Order: sequence, then C-alpha cells, then structure tokens
Amino acid sequence: MEKGTLYGVSIGPGDPELITVKAMKVIERSKYIATPETGTSDSLALSIVSDAVDLSAKEIMGLSFPMTKDAEILARSHKEAADSIAEVLDSGNDVAMLNLGDITVYSTFAYVMNILLERDYDVELIPGVTSFCASASELKISLTTMNDPLHIIPATGVDLKEALALPGTKVLMKIGRSMPKLIEVLDELGLENNVYAVENCGLENEKVYKGLDEFDSKMGYFTIVVVK
Amino acid sequence: MEKGTLYGVSIGPGDPELITVKAMKVIERSKYIATPETGTSDSLALSIVSDAVDLSAKEIMGLSFPMTKDAEILARSHKEAADSIAEVLDSGNDVAMLNLGDITVYSTFAYVMNILLERDYDVELIPGVTSFCASASELKISLTTMNDPLHIIPATGVDLKEALALPGTKVLMKIGRSMPKLIEVLDELGLENNVYAVENCGLENEKVYKGLDEFDSKMGYFTIVVVK
Repeated sequence: MEKGTLYGVSIGPGDPELITVKAMKVIERSKYIATPETGTSDSLALSIVSDAVDLSAKEIMGLSFPMTKDAEILARSHKEAADSIAEVLDSGNDVAMLNLGDITVYSTFAYVMNILLERDYDVELIPGVTSFCASASELKISLTTMNDPLHIIPATGVDLKEALALPGTKVLMKIGRSMPKLIEVLDELGLENNVYAVENCGLENEKVYKGLDEFDSKMGYFTIVVVK
Repeated sequence: MEKGTLYGVSIGPGDPELITVKAMKVIERSKYIATPETGTSDSLALSIVSDAVDLSAKEIMGLSFPMTKDAEILARSHKEAADSIAEVLDSGNDVAMLNLGDITVYSTFAYVMNILLERDYDVELIPGVTSFCASASELKISLTTMNDPLHIIPATGVDLKEALALPGTKVLMKIGRSMPKLIEVLDELGLENNVYAVENCGLENEKVYKGLDEFDSKMGYFTIVVVK
C-alpha cells in the first residue's frame, strides 16, 4: 500500500483568517490532524483552526511535547510523536500536523520531520505567517528599512545586551520569564522610545504596547517585542 | 464623505495559494488595486493575484517606484504614490496595495503608509508569508533550532564576512549583483555544505540549490540564500 504524506501546516499567528488558502485545503482534506500539546499552548493551534474548518469528523492526534530542557526527554517525545505519525502514514493516510506561526521558525515539527525524512517518508511543508510579521502589521510599523538587517532573537539563552547592540531591527521571541530583565536592559540602553510589543497577537486577548512606559514585567509567553 | 481605508496586502512569495484568507477577502471587495511597478518586478504581484482573484472589474493603479538609490527621486516617487492613493481614499473608496512576501519586510508600502498615516488616513496591514519562510519550506529545513537566533540580511550594503560570522542561521535577501562576492565569501569561510538557496520561490521557474557546488553566480534577483 502507498504510504501517506506528512504535511507540516503553518496556521499563522492566531487570527483564523491569516491561514493561507493552501493550508486550509490540506487541513480540509486530511482525516488525521496532529497537534502539539505542551504546557502553555495546549491545543491552541486546534482551537484556532476549529474556527475556520469543521473538525468534527477528523481524527485528532494530540502529540505530547513536555516543556523541558532535558535533551533526553525531548528526544524521546519527538521519537514517540514520529512513531505515532508513522503508524498512520503506513496505513496509507496523510497526517496534517498543525503549527502556530510558520513551520520553519522555532517549531517542534522540525524534529519530528527530520526523524521521518530519515525513515524515507514523504513530508511537505506549508509556510505561514509568523507572529513577528503579524505583530508588526498590528503595530503599523515596518520591520526593516532599505538595507538594514532584521534579527530574530530568542530572549532566553542569549546575552540580551549584546543582541540588542546589533545593527538594524531586533525582534525578541520566546520571552518566557525574561521580561523583567529585558525591560531593565532596554532602559539601560536608552531604547525606551524605540520599543513596541504585541501580546497574544490575533487572539481575543491581544494587547499592543508602544514605548517602554507601557511595558509590564507580567507580559506573557506569547509576547513579541520589536526594537527599532 | 467618509474617507476610504488603505489596505497594505501581503500576497506571499509567489504561489497564489499562499495568499491568506484575509488578503483574498480584502482584494475581492476592493475596487481599487494598487501595485508597485519597478524595474525587476513589473506587476509580478498583480500576475500572482490574477491567478486567484478575478481582476477584470478592478481599477488597477500602477505605482511607479524607480530602482534607484537617489534619496530625492525615491522620496518623490513615494509622495506621488501617496498622493494618487489619497485621491481615491478622499472619494470614499478603499485601496488595496499589493506587496510580495510580507508587507513589513523590505516593502515599499512602508514609505507610502507613513506619508498617509501622517495625513491621518486609515491604514490597515494584512501580514503574509515571507519569501524566506517559503524557501525554507521548499528546502524542508528549519530556519531555527531551540534558542538560536535568525538573521535576515540584505546582501547589498553589509560586510558579508561580518554578517556570516553571526551565531545562528543567516538568510540573505536582496542578492542583486552580489552573488559572485557571496559565493567567494561562503567558500572562504568553509560553509560550502551549510548553504541552501531557492530562486523564484513558488513561481514556475523555481529552482532549489543545496550546497555551494550547486550555486551559480548568475542566480537572479529573487534568490533567497540560507546559511545554517
């Protein structure tokens, strides 16, 4: 029997209308919908898609990816996800795995994909709208000008002062618990009028911040900070 | 009379199916469609959209943006574009201005938007799929891993050696005539096995390159280079 294809489907930042036509089609025709389940984003992807596509006849596969830095636990969760997807592909069915934002930017999908590519399964990726592009649109600012670079920086695990000294625009993602530190560094560098943020972009509880005065150390996990 | 709204509409990298549902709706209901006309991308945006939406009843506004570095000529072209859009907005009609890729990344729209925001017109931005995300999807590679940064770098006007020494993944855009120099630097830095490129992503003449051996100094303007 011919094996199915794994589709990595980007569903964009949160607004169901920011899903592409191609992603909608793949989700609509796939019987098996896989969705990552982590501590903070429990089926958020599924809830966004359910506003755009009728999922009642779908087989939903919840893939568990623990929020940990333990490489062994992570590797095991990726392998388990790959195994359960492989089982469906072997039965001749396609699987559409949902991914917030774009599938090639900080996605768990990449790990699962690499395992399945090594096992010679067919994999297709559908690109999507990143949360940082959507945030800039909400803020009505451009991320780049002329010939300036743009740096996408995970706030955890980098030297913030060094990162913010790069030329061009800086986008900070994966803020996690580093917001108090980030606020401190932005203030120290005198960037208080050059910063913007969007929390929960495209979701009902979206909030926009312009200037460091409006920032709040309690800003949550799904916050994108732009430093011009 | 109530003034119209200017919509900055991202149409993605080239494949008409990579337009978002939201962008499709805005284009469908807008009578006036503005599209940038430059030396290299003459109505490419319009030709992509025409595969997805019937444009026969639309008023097409060709906005001329010369490919020059002369700041005065550029500023004049932005002002002229803003003036002609303002005229339509004043008549109570909306204008949808098309933009390849995402509207906040190296877009001419930003300049026109800023002029019209200063004149208190309503402007809405619809984010879209960037060419670098779409290229990574075509290549089946992820642009980031765990806590590594991602740098989007315009190849013209930066020190390539310095830019390629940054930690994390580098995406080179706006290659223009710098491909021979870029190939030289990639070779010098011993990055021959860590480089990928997509030319004309999502278009009929798309071409994928893996490894420096496959690179060609004649690779064209719409080439995205990824350095892992």
